[in-house]
Amino acid sequence: MKIVKQINTKKGMKVNELVKEMSLSNVFGAGRLAKSVDIVENMIKDKECKVFFGLAGAMVPGGMKNIIIDMLENKWIDVFVTTGANLTHDLIEALGMHHYQGSSDADDKKLHKIGIDRIYDSFMPNKAYEKLEDFFSKNFEKISKEKDIKSFLWKLGSLTPKNSILNACYKNKIPIFCPAIADSGIGLILWGHLAKGKKTDVNAFDDLKEMIDIAWTAKKTGVFYIGGGVPKNYIQQAMQLSKGASYGVQITMDRPEHGGSSGANLKEGVSWGKMDEKGHFVDLICDATIALPIIHAALKDRV
Amino acid sequence: MKIVKQINTKKGMKVNELVKEMSLSNVFGAGRLAKSVDIVENMIKDKECKVFFGLAGAMVPGGMKNIIIDMLENKWIDVFVTTGANLTHDLIEALGMHHYQGSSDADDKKLHKIGIDRIYDSFMPNKAYEKLEDFFSKNFEKISKEKDIKSFLWKLGSLTPKNSILNACYKNKIPIFCPAIADSGIGLILWGHLAKGKKTDVNAFDDLKEMIDIAWTAKKTGVFYIGGGVPKNYIQQAMQLSKGASYGVQITMDRPEHGGSSGANLKEGVSWGKMDEKGHFVDLICDATIALPIIHAALKDRV
Amino acid sequence: MKIVKQINTKKGMKVNELVKEMSLSNVFGAGRLAKSVDIVENMIKDKECKVFFGLAGAMVPGGMKNIIIDMLENKWIDVFVTTGANLTHDLIEALGMHHYQGSSDADDKKLHKIGIDRIYDSFMPNKAYEKLEDFFSKNFEKISKEKDIKSFLWKLGSLTPKNSILNACYKNKIPIFCPAIADSGIGLILWGHLAKGKKTDVNAFDDLKEMIDIAWTAKKTGVFYIGGGVPKNYIQQAMQLSKGASYGVQITMDRPEHGGSSGANLKEGVSWGKMDEKGHFVDLICDATIALPIIHAALKDRV
Amino acid sequence: MKIVKQINTKKGMKVNELVKEMSLSNVFGAGRLAKSVDIVENMIKDKECKVFFGLAGAMVPGGMKNIIIDMLENKWIDVFVTTGANLTHDLIEALGMHHYQGSSDADDKKLHKIGIDRIYDSFMPNKAYEKLEDFFSKNFEKISKEKDIKSFLWKLGSLTPKNSILNACYKNKIPIFCPAIADSGIGLILWGHLAKGKKTDVNAFDDLKEMIDIAWTAKKTGVFYIGGGVPKNYIQQAMQLSKGASYGVQITMDRPEHGGSSGANLKEGVSWGKMDEKGHFVDLICDATIALPIIHAALKDRV
Repeated sequence: MKIVKQINTKKGMKVNELVKEMSLSNVFGAGRLAKSVDIVENMIKDKECKVFFGLAGAMVPGGMKNIIIDMLENKWIDVFVTTGANLTHDLIEALGMHHYQGSSDADDKKLHKIGIDRIYDSFMPNKAYEKLEDFFSKNFEKISKEKDIKSFLWKLGSLTPKNSILNACYKNKIPIFCPAIADSGIGLILWGHLAKGKKTDVNAFDDLKEMIDIAWTAKKTGVFYIGGGVPKNYIQQAMQLSKGASYGVQITMDRPEHGGSSGANLKEGVSWGKMDEKGHFVDLICDATIALPIIHAALKDRV
Repeated sequence: MKIVKQINTKKGMKVNELVKEMSLSNVFGAGRLAKSVDIVENMIKDKECKVFFGLAGAMVPGGMKNIIIDMLENKWIDVFVTTGANLTHDLIEALGMHHYQGSSDADDKKLHKIGIDRIYDSFMPNKAYEKLEDFFSKNFEKISKEKDIKSFLWKLGSLTPKNSILNACYKNKIPIFCPAIADSGIGLILWGHLAKGKKTDVNAFDDLKEMIDIAWTAKKTGVFYIGGGVPKNYIQQAMQLSKGASYGVQITMDRPEHGGSSGANLKEGVSWGKMDEKGHFVDLICDATIALPIIHAALKDRV
Repeated sequence: MKIVKQINTKKGMKVNELVKEMSLSNVFGAGRLAKSVDIVENMIKDKECKVFFGLAGAMVPGGMKNIIIDMLENKWIDVFVTTGANLTHDLIEALGMHHYQGSSDADDKKLHKIGIDRIYDSFMPNKAYEKLEDFFSKNFEKISKEKDIKSFLWKLGSLTPKNSILNACYKNKIPIFCPAIADSGIGLILWGHLAKGKKTDVNAFDDLKEMIDIAWTAKKTGVFYIGGGVPKNYIQQAMQLSKGASYGVQITMDRPEHGGSSGANLKEGVSWGKMDEKGHFVDLICDATIALPIIHAALKDRV
Repeated sequence: MKIVKQINTKKGMKVNELVKEMSLSNVFGAGRLAKSVDIVENMIKDKECKVFFGLAGAMVPGGMKNIIIDMLENKWIDVFVTTGANLTHDLIEALGMHHYQGSSDADDKKLHKIGIDRIYDSFMPNKAYEKLEDFFSKNFEKISKEKDIKSFLWKLGSLTPKNSILNACYKNKIPIFCPAIADSGIGLILWGHLAKGKKTDVNAFDDLKEMIDIAWTAKKTGVFYIGGGVPKNYIQQAMQLSKGASYGVQITMDRPEHGGSSGANLKEGVSWGKMDEKGHFVDLICDATIALPIIHAALKDRV
């Protein structure tokens, strides 16, 4: 048995040095954070491994956009799955709008009157929808002919200014999946066009083929989840048709006891064959806006 | 100010009597549970109100199926939104398979060997997928021609034996939405057919029209959420185009501080115009398998 | 393997009937709630078993007082351990003051100005301290001579009007332990007297003897925890000198991953010898103001 | 309104640099972590401010001991309040024993057989109690004559080898309070002596005077809580007799809705007068073994 080394810090300490201290302590949340860095490092460095990244939660209003883009640009991610909300917030910022520092105690009635939408303690001007509407009005013909959701999103990425998640996926040819794309501000804007009698050709099931083919043919797979929801579950079900993930990290504040997929411990996936029983997995219970920057900063020193 | 009445119980006490005691105490979780019953009662009894019900979490393996069906059969629900997983588990039971009482401490490696998929402490035989495959092989032609997800699910419901959520929605003409249907066992089975070159006509966006039309034209709306994820968010975004929900109950174990939609308090929706600032809302922090049966049993005495 | 029976409710359903339905479903939170009722029933009915009850959390402002008193009066509890706060709130109500239904969104600055102390959404008039001060001024001589905390609390109970937890313990000769009694409104009032130069004879360690003797000599033991903190931990450490608890139920919203005693799963106690490896234990993740009234109402039909 | 700056990381990034990025994002958990660093920095640097530090949770088995000692040695803390468990684990390590890296999935029955006590995924050899027993046998006469808990703990600290929390408090004359000291391994060992007829002179209430005098006479106060329980509550009640804390940081995984003191948001204390309505407070929802090392490392660059 190894001793729990008491963690030491020092003046001028680097993030990666602190993570290594946590690795020597190796218990509780600190230990899990250190393991998360190690496992993500390994899945990125393993050349046989396809990395599936699932991103849920309001991560653009939460300040995580550049970190995601950096991971995409560096090809740390092979398959990107997210929510429609994240792509909407990404597109909003790409179109020149911003999210603002607010307060969770704000008076929601007043915010409504002045056109501010609250996302916990982050604010978004409701005007963002006008920008979105302009963008889609201008581009509807180009994107509505795409036949599946992935192609639709890549097309969107091709039309989106740089420094966005959508554009980074498109440019780097990283498949981006978002099964519930209709459930988003993007969906809402499209609805406005459908309501006027326009049509899209986007099929609900078709990009399943590509998603599962990648999992099916990969020599090895790794999964990295920020939050749960559809992004996690959609990757997990693809893993059922892989050899079982060799690496897995999930960062969540949800808990397992009430039985939902979002809070389920990764090792549960071993029973389904989603996870390889010899794989390396860690469930990190932490706010992602704390954990992800630490993991990312440590990896900058390692990869 | 009203006194916190200390709760009394008695021999032979009815669920609704206990909820009324909780209503007189009116603080902490007990108070919120009692308010949940009142608000759901009011949204059901209000004839001008369309009730939108969002169901996430593994609620069929969790024993909630009959309660959901009863709510649908009694027309307590006007619009039903759920995850693909819930519909898959529902279909599996409709096809004669079962979920089993297991253990969260089970050895997942052993379970994998004997073909048991674990959902926390509920077990599902992996054979369920064979039954699903038979069903879809027999019915693929019938369902693949549907043009949108809602029609696809109603068609599925028309082919599904009684005593299922899918069939109850179909029979009672309750619109059922599931934007992320590709993210489910149903999606996985369809993939098998797509992989062989078959096609479906199901559009990813088209049923947004019906969903939002119902919200848009309703005199009043009420929302009732079991868990978060896409079901909650998809209803919330429709509310943005309603007059703002007059009633709202959400049951979740998630928390708001990390900024995700699933844990966001309902009153946050006031800033977006999703919730009417004069509406009645409660966030109940509870395992749904505890709270929902209590709410349902109390409502059986009231509605 | 047993099937997860889908839960049914009905008009006029009794609490105990609903709990039995949950017992047949036997998964997720509902299953754990049903197991909690069974295990508490068994520890009460087992004549060889001493029941140790640990009560943390603001359970008097939360409306649980009468249920606790009923459990004490019915001798369902052999040893009672709680926080100073619960005894302070109990004493405040015994002296004729009340807690009030408030709101967690209240303006704390305004509350401070009008002398209202907030406990989440329960309010207490700050005047309560004057009543406490009167009571202790009148009785200081009587209670300050007690030599240990348990005797101090029984003496307090002897001076306290009926319908209080303190009096119920005294009257029924149920040992009441509260190691951190100085950490409470009672402590604060005593401080006023100490500051004037008065003294008490109350020893910090002496009633450990009685507490541990009960555990040490008991043929069998059961533990029932509402919340964690000192009440749970103080009983757990006594269990280390028992034969290991045969029964255990804990109701908490805390979680285990960060390593604290409050959220630790009961089975962890097996490694310490606090729990008998053949015992029956359940960790119920629920707000106690929801779970305890249900358990209590069901037990009224069973015991 | 300030923009939510998207967080950037870089190779070789220092902890304090990352915290500053989080400060510019300033939302969700990252924003709260950055605020925590700022507020603790301010309370330490404010020469008029007495800093009360409350430490709950198994922080020595969790690897936080050296950080705590460093804070004490640097006089960042004026009053230290903790649990008996933390002091027991501290003493155990001071006596040459260790905690070990274990697993939360370990077989507790086997651990019991080989004399290993589990604290989530940290292990402690049960032999630690023998070392404790030796220590107290040798020193019982010296410590049992102390009249109050603080004096008892300082005496213990005077007898304890360097590199311990107890010794750092003693050496630096930092008052150390632990109202529930009987609830701990130290209490358990003392019980062995009491059971043989020995006595201590330690009064349960007497050090309340010193604790509250410090709060009462301080020009300004700041509170810093790791976890809740008695350490937080005991400081909070002292704050009721201060001018109201000007600074407050709490790090917890507990939540407020069930009404307990541990999860209560700091601003609730404004209603009680425990917190100054003009003070600066933050509730950080995070595993302390993640947050505390980050805060500490950032402060090493700032203070």
